[in-house]
Amino acid sequence: MMKLKWGMIGGGEGSQIGPAHRLGAQADGNFELVAGALDHDAEKGRKYAESLGISPDRAYGNWRDMLAAESAREDRVDLVTVATPNATHFEITKAFLDAGFHVLCEKPMTMTVEQGEEIVQVAEEAGKICAVNYCYSAYPMVREMRHMVAQGEIGKVRLVVTNFSHGHHGDATDADNPRVRWRYDPEMAGVSGQFADCGIHALHMASFIAGDEVRELSADFASAIDSRVLEDDAMVNFRMEGGTVGRLWTSSVAIGRQHGFDIQVFGETGGFRWASEQPNQVYYTPVGGRTQIMEKGENGLSDEATRLSRVAIAHPEGFPLAVANIYVDLAAAIRGGSSGNLPNAVDGVRSMAAVYAAVASAKERGKWVDARPPMFR
Amino acid sequence: MMKLKWGMIGGGEGSQIGPAHRLGAQADGNFELVAGALDHDAEKGRKYAESLGISPDRAYGNWRDMLAAESAREDRVDLVTVATPNATHFEITKAFLDAGFHVLCEKPMTMTVEQGEEIVQVAEEAGKICAVNYCYSAYPMVREMRHMVAQGEIGKVRLVVTNFSHGHHGDATDADNPRVRWRYDPEMAGVSGQFADCGIHALHMASFIAGDEVRELSADFASAIDSRVLEDDAMVNFRMEGGTVGRLWTSSVAIGRQHGFDIQVFGETGGFRWASEQPNQVYYTPVGGRTQIMEKGENGLSDEATRLSRVAIAHPEGFPLAVANIYVDLAAAIRGGSSGNLPNAVDGVRSMAAVYAAVASAKERGKWVDARPPMFR
Amino acid sequence: MMKLKWGMIGGGEGSQIGPAHRLGAQADGNFELVAGALDHDAEKGRKYAESLGISPDRAYGNWRDMLAAESAREDRVDLVTVATPNATHFEITKAFLDAGFHVLCEKPMTMTVEQGEEIVQVAEEAGKICAVNYCYSAYPMVREMRHMVAQGEIGKVRLVVTNFSHGHHGDATDADNPRVRWRYDPEMAGVSGQFADCGIHALHMASFIAGDEVRELSADFASAIDSRVLEDDAMVNFRMEGGTVGRLWTSSVAIGRQHGFDIQVFGETGGFRWASEQPNQVYYTPVGGRTQIMEKGENGLSDEATRLSRVAIAHPEGFPLAVANIYVDLAAAIRGGSSGNLPNAVDGVRSMAAVYAAVASAKERGKWVDARPPMFR
Amino acid sequence: MMKLKWGMIGGGEGSQIGPAHRLGAQADGNFELVAGALDHDAEKGRKYAESLGISPDRAYGNWRDMLAAESAREDRVDLVTVATPNATHFEITKAFLDAGFHVLCEKPMTMTVEQGEEIVQVAEEAGKICAVNYCYSAYPMVREMRHMVAQGEIGKVRLVVTNFSHGHHGDATDADNPRVRWRYDPEMAGVSGQFADCGIHALHMASFIAGDEVRELSADFASAIDSRVLEDDAMVNFRMEGGTVGRLWTSSVAIGRQHGFDIQVFGETGGFRWASEQPNQVYYTPVGGRTQIMEKGENGLSDEATRLSRVAIAHPEGFPLAVANIYVDLAAAIRGGSSGNLPNAVDGVRSMAAVYAAVASAKERGKWVDARPPMFR
Repeated sequence: MMKLKWGMIGGGEGSQIGPAHRLGAQADGNFELVAGALDHDAEKGRKYAESLGISPDRAYGNWRDMLAAESAREDRVDLVTVATPNATHFEITKAFLDAGFHVLCEKPMTMTVEQGEEIVQVAEEAGKICAVNYCYSAYPMVREMRHMVAQGEIGKVRLVVTNFSHGHHGDATDADNPRVRWRYDPEMAGVSGQFADCGIHALHMASFIAGDEVRELSADFASAIDSRVLEDDAMVNFRMEGGTVGRLWTSSVAIGRQHGFDIQVFGETGGFRWASEQPNQVYYTPVGGRTQIMEKGENGLSDEATRLSRVAIAHPEGFPLAVANIYVDLAAAIRGGSSGNLPNAVDGVRSMAAVYAAVASAKERGKWVDARPPMFR
Repeated sequence: MMKLKWGMIGGGEGSQIGPAHRLGAQADGNFELVAGALDHDAEKGRKYAESLGISPDRAYGNWRDMLAAESAREDRVDLVTVATPNATHFEITKAFLDAGFHVLCEKPMTMTVEQGEEIVQVAEEAGKICAVNYCYSAYPMVREMRHMVAQGEIGKVRLVVTNFSHGHHGDATDADNPRVRWRYDPEMAGVSGQFADCGIHALHMASFIAGDEVRELSADFASAIDSRVLEDDAMVNFRMEGGTVGRLWTSSVAIGRQHGFDIQVFGETGGFRWASEQPNQVYYTPVGGRTQIMEKGENGLSDEATRLSRVAIAHPEGFPLAVANIYVDLAAAIRGGSSGNLPNAVDGVRSMAAVYAAVASAKERGKWVDARPPMFR
Repeated sequence: MMKLKWGMIGGGEGSQIGPAHRLGAQADGNFELVAGALDHDAEKGRKYAESLGISPDRAYGNWRDMLAAESAREDRVDLVTVATPNATHFEITKAFLDAGFHVLCEKPMTMTVEQGEEIVQVAEEAGKICAVNYCYSAYPMVREMRHMVAQGEIGKVRLVVTNFSHGHHGDATDADNPRVRWRYDPEMAGVSGQFADCGIHALHMASFIAGDEVRELSADFASAIDSRVLEDDAMVNFRMEGGTVGRLWTSSVAIGRQHGFDIQVFGETGGFRWASEQPNQVYYTPVGGRTQIMEKGENGLSDEATRLSRVAIAHPEGFPLAVANIYVDLAAAIRGGSSGNLPNAVDGVRSMAAVYAAVASAKERGKWVDARPPMFR
Repeated sequence: MMKLKWGMIGGGEGSQIGPAHRLGAQADGNFELVAGALDHDAEKGRKYAESLGISPDRAYGNWRDMLAAESAREDRVDLVTVATPNATHFEITKAFLDAGFHVLCEKPMTMTVEQGEEIVQVAEEAGKICAVNYCYSAYPMVREMRHMVAQGEIGKVRLVVTNFSHGHHGDATDADNPRVRWRYDPEMAGVSGQFADCGIHALHMASFIAGDEVRELSADFASAIDSRVLEDDAMVNFRMEGGTVGRLWTSSVAIGRQHGFDIQVFGETGGFRWASEQPNQVYYTPVGGRTQIMEKGENGLSDEATRLSRVAIAHPEGFPLAVANIYVDLAAAIRGGSSGNLPNAVDGVRSMAAVYAAVASAKERGKWVDARPPMFR
């Protein structure tokens, strides 16, 4: 099978997300990096692009040049990944979709709900894929939980309890470090800090596994470090369309937690527990029975879970290969397959609506507010 | 040292709490069971009392007889444990305190805040100990966390995150089982179900470790099983007097969880994690450093933790010995020592105030309400 | 039910094993401590005995006085616990059995195989119980494994892999500390160090769960700290009568391990994993199936496991209550019930034979030697 | 940086090891697959090669054709991976080294010690890299342990305890399944079953971390399933050149274990514990101190560990990226960097010598035998 042609915007030298995307795109041999505008410093970006094997004529100085030039080529890229600073996602993603490119956008897809709704419409009109990198949903065992819920194996989902908490911003003496500070500064981060950064991963996961969407929510925000305007700790209670109760805690001052992205899903006839730090196992308990340890790669899993796992049972696969699974799905969808499980622009706008709802709720001390984008009310 | 004389009300044949108290009182040789009114069926209670070695003249048919007779004896019991149905705790506890007995009351201490305040006053006037069985606070490693917080080892406590969740009432087909049903029926259980049953243990623990008290709270209640009037799942956000943020989740429909009583405490310079299912370890992380596994019995722990541990490091001690530690503390206090760490009537009334506050908040969709008993406002 | 009368030899002030026995005997109200010769310093022993509530006439200065006096009483003790230094176990145990007392002896029961065989015979002739404190075998979930094996639930046992390893003697600078040194000095400890101290617990457990006995073994001993004559690390391979393969590692220089007493049992149709630091769970895997977490207190366990557990599922019970379970069994046996699962003198002599076999094998660089006492060959 | 040109022998359609190598070579963009002889069925191999993007003129029907053609090209491949059936490794590896290619050979490198010594000499004479895929040694945290030992952070290594045990061949009813059977049949597998298959990974790891080599060993082999000629369970005790004691258990009938590759390393002043199922953590205990959880990606790790980790702390990286790390090291070495940590032909021949030593020892019931290849005695 021919490799697909892939272009990247952002993810230049020294970025953390860049290598993760390159590994994800290349690992399974689906994509070849042929074009890029990798840095806001045009010269630096071109140089780095060439060091990655991109030919000089496709090592662009900025995304507008790339858009123009690639649009004009017969052998234009099949997919563009947008991994630039958050505030630029909307404009770039929209432009490439408009021009007929498939796009994978880093989260958050946009800075406002209105922008999000616009992206949904543009993608639909263009008939192009707009995926958003909620990569945790691409772990094999997460797909397995979604599959089991859809099959009714735990009955109606009563309750989802999730958290995405770490302590890496817990040191007040480090709070002015520029790499940390911008996240809690509304000038740079927008309306929300920790909830918009990590919480929306957990919220997406809740919807993804439950197969349902958030309808309304109530939030309690805190800035544990006083100098911060935006929240570094948040609790969000929510209800899904089908009545499922949700509880989501996210924090960046939980000293000792490395990356506590855990989710528990409780239904009428069973429950699940999954943790991102041990992503290859699911603890599953049928009501009245014993907890069973389900293992990635075991016999009898769904085709979906099996398809996204590369090595045998008990050989752990980790985060970079969850990102790679997003690219596996993208390659399949670009080649004409289903994009059913790919997180997309609708997920992107729902996240943004939830962020704004949580901010509004927190301001009114936990008032319940509609968490849906207007277009889905 | 002479054994102290101990009497029991409730905890008759077939009860679960009875044996736990007897083991707790006897394990370390501090108390001798010499009197009891063990069952609401007088005959059955007397018979069972005698089978436990209580002499016939102190095997009482009801607590009133016991109160009268013991009050009249020179060798009256030193301590009375009240382990009767919840609704009777107030009356019995009050009567024995009034008559000059030390009391250990099962939780909840009372059914209303007013009753709770009355107990506080009665105990104070009588100059007697009124302990309440928040036994989780008596684990050595819980005492160690309290000690470390008091010593400032994690700085100001920013955040406490705790849950006490299980799935043992998650089977809707079993919801009419009388052993389960009463807990969610306001006629029998009072104003709250799961929060009053398990949540208040977690809330007490938060205060106990942080060395601070809950000031206000906001609650979200759910009845996952429709036939239930009272909540079987609750999320409570709170603030302590000193500004600490609290998050407490409690559930009885979390299928697969056995008894998830966990607490995480995050301060300015460090964090803790402790779980009741592995009570002999604390995971402690100094800010910027590695997580360390602290072990019950290790060198260098506080005197308090060392005093309450019986066997060497890595020999686990469990729940019944946490109950026993309450009796160790009671014996010491009765013999004239400090009762500083014993959960007491003030804790009991604070719990009840929190329960009523949570119920009120949940009814008004999460409105923040004062969680303090009037006497402490 | 009347309490049984209990006497203790050894376990004086400051001993670690003494309190564990007192808690074990008292916790469930089966025994009352009425007599004791608690210290080799007669005066100190008597004083301490009285502080524990023993009446002065039964607070003895030495075990010979106690033997004489108790033998002469009508209300003589029902059980004697021997918790003196290892080298004295044989003489005292033998004397009390001879005089018609039931005995619980600390391990090792004797210092030689010949002595062990003598105890077996004396106990049999006297018709008295001689129990040995292999208390790990009294955990409810250990009894459950034994039961499941006996029921054929994992088929023929192919393989037992166990270890009892810690690092508490791993500091060479501390090796001359008298509390550590004696264990590796043949003058005081006998022929073996770590294997005789901890390894025999693991070996007993292997036999107990498999329901089979060790026939022959091959040992590799090491003294990681040079100044030690006896081994501080040992690996013992063995074969049981029925062909089961065994592998046992024991160490006291495994820095970072607190008390790694783990056992894995693998049969034709399933496997188990149990660890003493989390004694309330068994990980059970049927061949071809998922690993299941079995919990102490869950529905459907054997009567034996249920009988020995005091509090509900997920309320952990620990080491002191495993010791207490030995006393539960002793009380039942003394009152005429079965002593089927109580570790006894036969277990004691088998351990000693294994110790001598391991020492002999290690001297001949792992030569396989018969591990059975002559009386069972 | 230009991609290196890479060729593959074996690893055709349906193989498990093939995709792992392709992911490993491609993930970080170091290698481009340009040539291959992927299947013993020439036509099938060519077709599959083309499907992977190999141009038809470099999609070879067998390795001899590939050797001839690639040797003749100016743009010959920089590296050849040998992932064919075990018995062919020697001949192919030798031929390509002889012709001046760098080689990565799957384990076992050869079927005999003599062959292994020949490979060592050929590689040395050719001045080419002959790496062997002991990929577990390429996990960042394994490299960290090796680094710490080399820095003296745990003092002299006293003891290494390791196991590589699973239960995937534990079902006797499945023993005749051809995918399982060949492993225990000397006609196909050679002199050893489970020890040669999994044990040598653990043995290599012991040497790798300790920075020392195995001198002599004593083995106990068992065939738990009777129909097997070769062992499915083995215990190997060993001594390293510097006196370190080793204990290695390997099994394929340990039902319930998925892939228990664990290693514990105990030195004079500290100990480590690492498990392949959770490869991103090391549990480290300084003597007399608390166990610390070291995390991949934490601040302060060695350059070596940092270099081989791609995503931030607490984002797990798994087995396929350990394989990828071997390719990272290969790329660096081919480009002129150090190959110091790459497992190589010397490791390959040492493994084979240990296998033959273990077989000989097991036949003589555990006799200690020299485990070194003649060339290193």
